[in-house]
Amino acid sequence: MNTLVEQHVRSEQLFTGRVINVRRDTVLLPNGKEATREVVEHPGAVAVVPVLDDGRIIMVSQYRHAAGKILLEIPAGKLDKGEQPKECALRELEEETGYQCRHLQKLASVYTTPGFSNEVIHIYLAEGLIRTQQRLDEDEFLNMECYTKEQLHSMITDGSICDNKSITGLLLAGV
Amino acid sequence: MNTLVEQHVRSEQLFTGRVINVRRDTVLLPNGKEATREVVEHPGAVAVVPVLDDGRIIMVSQYRHAAGKILLEIPAGKLDKGEQPKECALRELEEETGYQCRHLQKLASVYTTPGFSNEVIHIYLAEGLIRTQQRLDEDEFLNMECYTKEQLHSMITDGSICDNKSITGLLLAGV
Repeated sequence: MNTLVEQHVRSEQLFTGRVINVRRDTVLLPNGKEATREVVEHPGAVAVVPVLDDGRIIMVSQYRHAAGKILLEIPAGKLDKGEQPKECALRELEEETGYQCRHLQKLASVYTTPGFSNEVIHIYLAEGLIRTQQRLDEDEFLNMECYTKEQLHSMITDGSICDNKSITGLLLAGV
Repeated sequence: MNTLVEQHVRSEQLFTGRVINVRRDTVLLPNGKEATREVVEHPGAVAVVPVLDDGRIIMVSQYRHAAGKILLEIPAGKLDKGEQPKECALRELEEETGYQCRHLQKLASVYTTPGFSNEVIHIYLAEGLIRTQQRLDEDEFLNMECYTKEQLHSMITDGSICDNKSITGLLLAGV
């Protein structure tokens, strides 16, 4: 397998942003030739599948500027600096939905797009939900919507749900 | 739902690369305030779940520089300029695995990471495979490996498969 590995030669930082940084790396390919790789550095994120006691799942719809449309997703958010994924999952769940949970279980940690980014999303299942208070950031706008597993399965099949972390989380949660 | 929408104000192009471009947009939030959004422009891609007549699925392992490791994935590749997703799926399937297919069926089109990129991956199921000839790009290095659906399900559950497009494709293909 080692014959597949690319050796890092040098990095050039291209852009330092609010959420992402971009760099161009030069690598040595297995055939000894050099190639360049554009890398989007991302702090990582969490996503949570929150299951109500009646079996329905809480989803959030929000406008995604990069996609240019409103997407229906499972609650999610970026890791703060130094924050542990589990802690972030509990925080984002309560901020976006106004629920705490008694049981939080890791479903998967996935690379969203390893061809150009190091972003990893840690996906959790949240059960035993307890109503508290939604606390959106000042500049955060989203609507909460609850669906049965059967409804969500149809919405994945017909393309109404097209956010990949949400599809993975829902399918791993048995949708 | 319209209260969620952000209005585009202006764009600043930050980086034009080989695979990705990066821009910073200013948007008007639903509350009338301005905010910035970093957007990674990507040409889009396809991924294919190739099922052999004996039910095993062809996977490829390749080094992903952004992730810094070798990942086991379904065959995939970027759309060439002007290329249709279905045409790209057939091309990438044959280039990476050396198989053509009699039946190609769309499973989903998904946003990989809509928080910062417009990338869409079109995921297909390929059946009725016919052996031809693998034709990797000169600077492309990958290993083909075939697994049963049961093996792949375990590898998703235990984290051995951690590429999100692959997990979605495999689960939608009945793994």
